Amino acid sequence: MPSEFDLIQRYFKRPVTGVLLGIGDDAAIIAPKAGKELAISTDCLVAGQHFFENTDPYKLGYKALAVNLSDMAAMGATPRWVTLSLTLPRSLIGFHESWLDEFSRGFHELAATHQIALIGGDTTAGPMNICVQIIGEVNQGQWLRRSGAKPGDDIWVSGCLGDAALALKHQLGELVLTDEEAAYCLSALDMPSARVALGQRLIELAHSAIDISDGLMADLGHILSCSAQSATVELETVPGSEIMKRYLPSPLAVECLMTGGDDYELCFTASKENQSVIRQLGQELRVPLTIVGEIKPQKTLKPELIIYGSKGEKIVLEKKGYDHFAS
Amino acid sequence: MPSEFDLIQRYFKRPVTGVLLGIGDDAAIIAPKAGKELAISTDCLVAGQHFFENTDPYKLGYKALAVNLSDMAAMGATPRWVTLSLTLPRSLIGFHESWLDEFSRGFHELAATHQIALIGGDTTAGPMNICVQIIGEVNQGQWLRRSGAKPGDDIWVSGCLGDAALALKHQLGELVLTDEEAAYCLSALDMPSARVALGQRLIELAHSAIDISDGLMADLGHILSCSAQSATVELETVPGSEIMKRYLPSPLAVECLMTGGDDYELCFTASKENQSVIRQLGQELRVPLTIVGEIKPQKTLKPELIIYGSKGEKIVLEKKGYDHFAS
Repeated sequence: MPSEFDLIQRYFKRPVTGVLLGIGDDAAIIAPKAGKELAISTDCLVAGQHFFENTDPYKLGYKALAVNLSDMAAMGATPRWVTLSLTLPRSLIGFHESWLDEFSRGFHELAATHQIALIGGDTTAGPMNICVQIIGEVNQGQWLRRSGAKPGDDIWVSGCLGDAALALKHQLGELVLTDEEAAYCLSALDMPSARVALGQRLIELAHSAIDISDGLMADLGHILSCSAQSATVELETVPGSEIMKRYLPSPLAVECLMTGGDDYELCFTASKENQSVIRQLGQELRVPLTIVGEIKPQKTLKPELIIYGSKGEKIVLEKKGYDHFAS
Repeated sequence: MPSEFDLIQRYFKRPVTGVLLGIGDDAAIIAPKAGKELAISTDCLVAGQHFFENTDPYKLGYKALAVNLSDMAAMGATPRWVTLSLTLPRSLIGFHESWLDEFSRGFHELAATHQIALIGGDTTAGPMNICVQIIGEVNQGQWLRRSGAKPGDDIWVSGCLGDAALALKHQLGELVLTDEEAAYCLSALDMPSARVALGQRLIELAHSAIDISDGLMADLGHILSCSAQSATVELETVPGSEIMKRYLPSPLAVECLMTGGDDYELCFTASKENQSVIRQLGQELRVPLTIVGEIKPQKTLKPELIIYGSKGEKIVLEKKGYDHFAS
């Protein structure tokens, strides 16, 4: 069985630029550019919780980085450096194993597209736990936050929501998708595309932003509580894929669309004056951008999030969103 | 059961200074000082691998941070910011539980002594896995590395080695310590003191440094391979506590002393000219500093690490050090 150091050398050490000291010492050393501030975030994927133990390791390596890139997107930051802490069952370790080959290939491929340097980490034996910590750069004071939503703001969503949740329900046997539908939805679940470029362009345009990881309701809810505002959402306007539309308005599909999570799209709020500029931006970046609701002044003790159906009826969703510790 | 957000608010969100945006958004925002470079490192503690599931959570919170501080010490960096990724079995979650109270108390207490800000993290349900990522500041180009050892350098060790390993063997029943001995050694195992101040002062004095987490042999071995040098170590000179001395020279005690690991002392190399200055530094910081050997030119294909006994005989140790993936 290879040593921890063999593993790091073989699978994770790659030539990197813009790093003063990389993998192989007690810490990495980086030099942020003058006038830059750093955005720092960490997200772990836990087997049985975020993915099935038998998930394709290439996709797992890709997704472990993608979900962290999504946090950078939600800040409007430029991702620069990552560390990777990998806890793996002994059964997956060893040069005869292709697991690490595939995992590291998926991770490095996405890192290369975003020119991110893997600068350190930790490898341990144990129940599978993949923890990525990411550091990005922003110009001084120039970042997106959850707390800036203002009454009258449009509530925007990028891409389509709920396909990842449909795929998960398919995997759990709660829903049967056709092979073609499953293939499409599983790609949304396994290899989400973080909206990094969009986030950076929104710094000048959006009052608040968040990435949708726990579902639109839950994550928009964070914007509302951080901003002390309420909101209305028109269910009909929430963007779903062609496949999602086949299953709407079934309660299961509505649940996937509104509370499913694992979307890694951006939800942001912006003044109505910016509507046309934002639409142009979406065309330029080839990212669908849709207005799904409006920020309202908070009149109650807690922020209110009201969903309206096509006939103007209020819709109440049982599940509010994903919570790791929900019983 | 409390939500993930309740947990973060209750146990981990604390007022912090010098952070532009802390816990509660998609990422934290920090502003490194001009002329500073950042040292970044991550270390995870995995239940069953690094600690017993029933370990006192206060000590666990303390140690999770201490082992990361030790990496900063080995770089001569000033620790500034940490993120914490916590994967916990559901059984440990809940306000009726004291586990998180105690864990966060141990973590925050040590963070406060070093004026470190907890700026973010992630909490998930699953097999217990505690992952800390730490960021420290160094002046431009001013850091300790593993790669600078030069022939003729003294090899220094801080504190005493092997007590943590004795405690572990006691817990595993491989050795029976008296209650008084066990109490002393367990404190070394459970609440190691990272040599942060020492590391910072060594920047001007040491050619190379590492913290001893995997055992003196393994970690000095890293200095040798990174520096492409060989070394000799005099077993008699390796510092052990009064308790360790009671068990030396039994093979088990020698193994704990030389390869036990979990010491979190510093091993560093420095020119002989600096001997007196380094001794004074040890007295000033009240940290025992001991010369245990000398760096030699590498004459073989791989670096050689030769241990000599009291009669000048070569000593061969079976176990070289801790390796997470050793079969």
